Amino acid sequence: MNERAFTAAELKGELHARFADPRRVRFQDVDAAGIIFYPRILEYMSDVYIAMLMSAGWDLPTELRTGTVGTPLVHAEADYLAPLRFGDEVSVEVVGVKLGETSFTVGYRVRTATGKVAAVGQTVHVCLDRTTFRPQAIPPVLREMLRGE
Amino acid sequence: MNERAFTAAELKGELHARFADPRRVRFQDVDAAGIIFYPRILEYMSDVYIAMLMSAGWDLPTELRTGTVGTPLVHAEADYLAPLRFGDEVSVEVVGVKLGETSFTVGYRVRTATGKVAAVGQTVHVCLDRTTFRPQAIPPVLREMLRGE
Amino acid sequence: MNERAFTAAELKGELHARFADPRRVRFQDVDAAGIIFYPRILEYMSDVYIAMLMSAGWDLPTELRTGTVGTPLVHAEADYLAPLRFGDEVSVEVVGVKLGETSFTVGYRVRTATGKVAAVGQTVHVCLDRTTFRPQAIPPVLREMLRGE
Amino acid sequence: MNERAFTAAELKGELHARFADPRRVRFQDVDAAGIIFYPRILEYMSDVYIAMLMSAGWDLPTELRTGTVGTPLVHAEADYLAPLRFGDEVSVEVVGVKLGETSFTVGYRVRTATGKVAAVGQTVHVCLDRTTFRPQAIPPVLREMLRGE
Repeated sequence: MNERAFTAAELKGELHARFADPRRVRFQDVDAAGIIFYPRILEYMSDVYIAMLMSAGWDLPTELRTGTVGTPLVHAEADYLAPLRFGDEVSVEVVGVKLGETSFTVGYRVRTATGKVAAVGQTVHVCLDRTTFRPQAIPPVLREMLRGE
Repeated sequence: MNERAFTAAELKGELHARFADPRRVRFQDVDAAGIIFYPRILEYMSDVYIAMLMSAGWDLPTELRTGTVGTPLVHAEADYLAPLRFGDEVSVEVVGVKLGETSFTVGYRVRTATGKVAAVGQTVHVCLDRTTFRPQAIPPVLREMLRGE
Repeated sequence: MNERAFTAAELKGELHARFADPRRVRFQDVDAAGIIFYPRILEYMSDVYIAMLMSAGWDLPTELRTGTVGTPLVHAEADYLAPLRFGDEVSVEVVGVKLGETSFTVGYRVRTATGKVAAVGQTVHVCLDRTTFRPQAIPPVLREMLRGE
Repeated sequence: MNERAFTAAELKGELHARFADPRRVRFQDVDAAGIIFYPRILEYMSDVYIAMLMSAGWDLPTELRTGTVGTPLVHAEADYLAPLRFGDEVSVEVVGVKLGETSFTVGYRVRTATGKVAAVGQTVHVCLDRTTFRPQAIPPVLREMLRGE
């Protein structure tokens, strides 16, 4: 199991949102128990991560066609603190990115309309050369986007 | 973050599969990078967990309509060890369940046709009374199914 | 097969958009062929239909918990005119609703950023009493929302 | 709208199943109304179509990497005859394929454990050269697999 870069306390409330994706829990996001199907929270996390980078200028579709750098996940996790139901308005937030030399961890939080934290999570990504599959240093331009400065 | 009941070493190889769900990575399970979209592994884990319990006699659809006990997730995580692509044959396995008084952790492993471990994961569930939302002891019948004896 | 209320010509261009949902084709919406997985277009249609009614004041989550009227689908179809890929910006539009006494048909169009029609579709819904499962007249308040006046 | 190759009567009962995919409606296949989310039926149709061709020897993953022929959808539709719920056992069937020179239509039926038809559908595919995007004659080997003889 990969080391966790973020503590639960950091994710739950200490950190400001770096990037937020307001959305509603969709009709099809719940399961037969009537609450959000748990992998959907990971989809929300993937969506906000990609939205943050594309909004920072990262052209991921082009990168996937022509680039040589990949940042696949090696670990993902989430804590579920409160059930979400169809129609609930939530803010899916990136609360921070911790950068290593060849890897980085992204921290997430899902808040309800009243500010309650419904879920937190983190994903660990490794930067690699997609032709050799060898780890490589995070390119400076991506490092800046991830740092958010 | 919840305590991890399973170590990576246990999940990766020490444990025998308790229940296995053979499947292929579907056409729609990959993403624009051409490898499995990471939340799909969590869906595979949810599928094998439900299949194991239903095969043990747990009538979850009826339970959801008429029962009072719920076992929602409070934590889920996965490690991604090798990329999976459309058409890959995999065995999604429950490798063990660790039981507490009011909660339990389920350990998972995804193996390729050659036996290589492509992913491992675990989910933590809390047993509660669905009317009061209070934790309660795992009912004996469910405890036996989870123990698998 | 149900009768089609909308002709292809109507959907492709004659009608103004009644309600539009701007979105991007997500990372996970494509399949192993690299273009949008065809049922995702139906998901987009479902999303814009629900968004239109909720924006008109229909509280569907509450309706599902306490109401007696249901409007399940009896037919859905789509024509695929141009491939969509990850990152494509599209406008998913409701172009019209044709009302019968106990049923209605909703027409949809998906346009790219350059205005090109990538897909059209329609869904046929039947209004019924959820306790008896008998068709019933569309309630006046819902009829007004569907008519969009 | 594309011409329909199959009549509802053919799909509902006249034709024998050419290929059947037994499955259960999954926990996450339902929506907030508690019945199957309608695009899921199209996913089931896609799954059985791919399973039929792969079982006939079509190596679609390799074809997508190295082949030049594509068979994208231009039309899909489904009729919903009875609601399906979590846990329902169904047989998703290809009931026939109607072949043209450069296109073909696949007919589908979803039956419950008691033999009741819960849904029928059809998809229209065009055979094209993936480099020029021009329609081309269905290659003989694929034609034989589709004909099922």
